[in-house]
Amino acid sequence: MNKTISSARPDGPGPIKEYDTEKEVVRLNPISNGTVIDHLPIKTAPKIMRLLKLNFDEAVMVAINIDSKKKGKKDLIFIEGKKLTAKEVAKSALIAEGSTWNIVKGKSVVSKSVIQMPKELFGIIICNNPNCITNQEHIETKFTIDNNKGKCYYCEREMEMDDIVKSLE
Amino acid sequence: MNKTISSARPDGPGPIKEYDTEKEVVRLNPISNGTVIDHLPIKTAPKIMRLLKLNFDEAVMVAINIDSKKKGKKDLIFIEGKKLTAKEVAKSALIAEGSTWNIVKGKSVVSKSVIQMPKELFGIIICNNPNCITNQEHIETKFTIDNNKGKCYYCEREMEMDDIVKSLE
Repeated sequence: MNKTISSARPDGPGPIKEYDTEKEVVRLNPISNGTVIDHLPIKTAPKIMRLLKLNFDEAVMVAINIDSKKKGKKDLIFIEGKKLTAKEVAKSALIAEGSTWNIVKGKSVVSKSVIQMPKELFGIIICNNPNCITNQEHIETKFTIDNNKGKCYYCEREMEMDDIVKSLE
Repeated sequence: MNKTISSARPDGPGPIKEYDTEKEVVRLNPISNGTVIDHLPIKTAPKIMRLLKLNFDEAVMVAINIDSKKKGKKDLIFIEGKKLTAKEVAKSALIAEGSTWNIVKGKSVVSKSVIQMPKELFGIIICNNPNCITNQEHIETKFTIDNNKGKCYYCEREMEMDDIVKSLE
């Protein structure tokens, strides 16, 4: 038995066969305007989704642990209608440095860049030292990132990347 | 600028152009052996993923709020290497009654069925009455489902479907 699962393709020539076992491909409508994050380290896509607090009011497609030419395996996210803010890119870097960040407009990729680890982060990481001035008064946090660790500018507390990422979610 | 993002297709004739803006399609390798849940109500795929406690050791593809011929919009999940247990199907029914549940073997859909709401659920729902015998002693819970509500067999406490689903995650 060789079946296909079809869905509508309102703007196309006919229904897309989403799961075409004969042609061995999963086909989905691409996003028209939004963001594609590619070459994510495996298993990071669910973290990125939580971090971006997606409301799923528009299409989101996520592929986890799929084959990649560059990296062996990777994750991949398509988000319709979403433009990442600078803060969201910085947060994503903490989880997925080196991933490719594409901006799609009118169904074309208009910008493609590599998500790079920022050297300084403002107002993103919450210092895990309860006595730090940033936890006592209304002061924006400032962290320097070096060698996969974050260091608070104010109290000099060092935080491991794992703890930083947990604090973001 | 019209670009494509490519990845390896180790068993195929060449790299798949995953995001082919010219042909207006997202293409991914299908799963070989596993589960496809289709025609999910929109925004339920993330809940199903949490409920199934996926570890992402094999490929998972999720499409949320995409076009559907049958339903206008839908969610869709592909899970490599996963066979749903009877309990997982029953849990999924509470979130996504009427969805299509496909079993894939050797890249073919070998079974296709509709996820139906069970009339009775054993050991799945935790009764929210703290005094219920099932919360006091080592007794498996039993709920009857009727009119989108669950009723505990032991203490007759009624639970709304929303509360039931929250208790599953």
